[in-house]
Amino acid sequence: MLLNCDMGESFGIYSLGADAAIMPHIDLANVACGFHGSDANHMSATVRLAIRHGVAIGAHPSLPDLQGFGRREMAIGREELRNVILYQVGALTAFLRASGARLSHIKPHGALYGMTARDPEAAGAMADAADVFDVPIMGLAGTLHESVYTARGHAFWPEYFADLDYDPQGKLVITRTHPQIDAALVEARVHAALEGRLLTRDGGELPLRASTICIHSDTPNAADLSRRIARILQNKTR
Amino acid sequence: MLLNCDMGESFGIYSLGADAAIMPHIDLANVACGFHGSDANHMSATVRLAIRHGVAIGAHPSLPDLQGFGRREMAIGREELRNVILYQVGALTAFLRASGARLSHIKPHGALYGMTARDPEAAGAMADAADVFDVPIMGLAGTLHESVYTARGHAFWPEYFADLDYDPQGKLVITRTHPQIDAALVEARVHAALEGRLLTRDGGELPLRASTICIHSDTPNAADLSRRIARILQNKTR
Amino acid sequence: MLLNCDMGESFGIYSLGADAAIMPHIDLANVACGFHGSDANHMSATVRLAIRHGVAIGAHPSLPDLQGFGRREMAIGREELRNVILYQVGALTAFLRASGARLSHIKPHGALYGMTARDPEAAGAMADAADVFDVPIMGLAGTLHESVYTARGHAFWPEYFADLDYDPQGKLVITRTHPQIDAALVEARVHAALEGRLLTRDGGELPLRASTICIHSDTPNAADLSRRIARILQNKTR
Amino acid sequence: MLLNCDMGESFGIYSLGADAAIMPHIDLANVACGFHGSDANHMSATVRLAIRHGVAIGAHPSLPDLQGFGRREMAIGREELRNVILYQVGALTAFLRASGARLSHIKPHGALYGMTARDPEAAGAMADAADVFDVPIMGLAGTLHESVYTARGHAFWPEYFADLDYDPQGKLVITRTHPQIDAALVEARVHAALEGRLLTRDGGELPLRASTICIHSDTPNAADLSRRIARILQNKTR
Repeated sequence: MLLNCDMGESFGIYSLGADAAIMPHIDLANVACGFHGSDANHMSATVRLAIRHGVAIGAHPSLPDLQGFGRREMAIGREELRNVILYQVGALTAFLRASGARLSHIKPHGALYGMTARDPEAAGAMADAADVFDVPIMGLAGTLHESVYTARGHAFWPEYFADLDYDPQGKLVITRTHPQIDAALVEARVHAALEGRLLTRDGGELPLRASTICIHSDTPNAADLSRRIARILQNKTR
Repeated sequence: MLLNCDMGESFGIYSLGADAAIMPHIDLANVACGFHGSDANHMSATVRLAIRHGVAIGAHPSLPDLQGFGRREMAIGREELRNVILYQVGALTAFLRASGARLSHIKPHGALYGMTARDPEAAGAMADAADVFDVPIMGLAGTLHESVYTARGHAFWPEYFADLDYDPQGKLVITRTHPQIDAALVEARVHAALEGRLLTRDGGELPLRASTICIHSDTPNAADLSRRIARILQNKTR
Repeated sequence: MLLNCDMGESFGIYSLGADAAIMPHIDLANVACGFHGSDANHMSATVRLAIRHGVAIGAHPSLPDLQGFGRREMAIGREELRNVILYQVGALTAFLRASGARLSHIKPHGALYGMTARDPEAAGAMADAADVFDVPIMGLAGTLHESVYTARGHAFWPEYFADLDYDPQGKLVITRTHPQIDAALVEARVHAALEGRLLTRDGGELPLRASTICIHSDTPNAADLSRRIARILQNKTR
Repeated sequence: MLLNCDMGESFGIYSLGADAAIMPHIDLANVACGFHGSDANHMSATVRLAIRHGVAIGAHPSLPDLQGFGRREMAIGREELRNVILYQVGALTAFLRASGARLSHIKPHGALYGMTARDPEAAGAMADAADVFDVPIMGLAGTLHESVYTARGHAFWPEYFADLDYDPQGKLVITRTHPQIDAALVEARVHAALEGRLLTRDGGELPLRASTICIHSDTPNAADLSRRIARILQNKTR
């Protein structure tokens, strides 16, 4: 079980996320590509930071919506969406190449994450783009992420969001902002996740399939949480 | 001697350049990367068009200035400029990879072309970016294009602009717009260029070093000119 | 009955629409505000052109989507949409003020036109923005354009699209591109419209309520059509 | 002597400046207009915040450079620059109008501040734009700000930067970042400024002409400084 986090979402003069504090603890960085956050400078710096900490680097492409941070769904055709994803992932690979690193995976951002989970055309566009780079795609088990990507022959990495709630049916409760969350609760969730158990909001349990745990970099105590989760995952591995 | 042309500078609904009519006649396409013109859709289509006609594909990166078509100089630091170039060239390589093609070369666009010709920091940034992709850089002989790129170990492709004037000292007369130009004059220039002679505006001649001839896609009779030049170059080769 | 046309949709180096040829014939110009087309230079020039021809100037705000020409629907909240409209209309008023002209009306563009016709929140946002400028809003009779704007106390200008088809139920058939259209057919439609009759695609007729006729500036023969329609409207008035 | 501060420079999800903490203490807010920071939502909110605290609202237009925060000089012609300023100031007036407020003044931002201080074409463009709104322009005494604006008949408000250094010749030392600064030093500077004395970096004094004091909202202790300065200014007035 690997720990992933969205990284490199600062833009120009604007800072977002405690990247420097979180990076030492994670395994997989999903790096923003300039369409919802980041720019060429932040991409370059984020790739270097990840490499310094031995973190595998994936692309985190978005709908073209910097002002809305990629969180507003758009009506965008399949071919157009594929092209927009290719553009972003390609841009990131230049910085990887500059550092001698390789692309690890792709994880769609924000509204694109939701659209690819529900809309066959959007999921197809994601798979079309992944065809070009031939890397695993991260997403939500039980959605089109899983069915479409695997049907298209891509490796699929299901993720568990340790800092979000799941409802009694096991459905992820997506929120716009990520408040501080009790570290003990997160630790309990991670221990359960390692045993294949999903703790739901009502105190119930459901079976969980996940190969990676996600922490949001804008959760206020994200650095502490990532440190704690990393420790649990390391002990488990030994 | 190869014929090159800037291609794929349309944006969204907006069309620019007679790409479809010119592409059959050229050897090298310098493809816009979305910062002065183009977008993911046009890049995808332009790469396919070039491949269909067996045209080698180079990147045509720009300063970030879509509204000004990359023609306004900006105060931008070396590291930042390198990153901006890497981002664009990387984005283009995704579409090349999707079509199984390889990057042929890089040619900076507009104000970036001028800045890299004159400013050591800008030329250095260009070379820094070219290091990553290890391809030749197109430019103007006798400027920093030549001295900096070659000092940095890059192959340099000097170009001759067959649809622009050169002054009596052999200096290129850059214009914002490219009016229709007499085909016979262009043919005479190309014949002279093939013999290493530069025809200047005042009727004089100077020695010319060039490995490629450029035609601007927005010169009104660019398609006819490119057809004529291609015919001359082919006859020469036989 | 007044003739209206979307004007000023060029952007940077890119030209769109035969504005100079159309402007002499129309009564109302809907001027793009930089979010789907246009920029500060084209807005300034378009305002001057309209004033030179005595054409009343309305704002033509859009969703923020230059690359998609404002034709892709977006999930955007009411307050946010109101703000985006205010920003654009305000920007246009600066150029009006510079020329001593006044804002005549507002007409939403593209996807925003459709969203405000169907979605109460979007129509409400449009009305919220119109509150600030206190001008009529142009739109489609029988949709939320009419019901929401009039309920909110705004003057509503229903428009008839003389270069588009209407289906047998009188529903406008919206198309992405606007092909050349037979001038005689358009003239027949305009004559009917002046008598309150809507000619449908199947040869039928329905009652029509319209106070203005729209011609699209990117219909290839738009200049000729606008000249013909203007002549009919002038004869009618006499 | 009035206290001014650049306000409303957040963008989308990104926060910048302690606006809510500073606004209660200032007299004049220079509100960003979306070209270097801000967007329609932040402009709307900032205007409301300023009105709630009885703060006069000026426009803070910039070169078009969101990624560079308007701090990179660009080669931009006079007419184009005038248009870009008009667009931004116009956009802001929509939000003023929505709240029944009036535009108080204009203060150019970042690289545009420097260009208008030194370049007659840029200063002329600023004056051209100010003609339209007929409000005072804030700037640096002894530069083209003063000479051009006053020659053009505009009221000129010279400002003193209480959180920046001045060299022994009285020249402002502009820095990209604004570190925390000793509050006692700032208070001493303000007391001197009220008596027409400029304290220079080397401990010297020069005569000062200023009608307003500026504090940068991104100086870490800006809220405390603005509170202290406001107290001094109030005592002075009584």
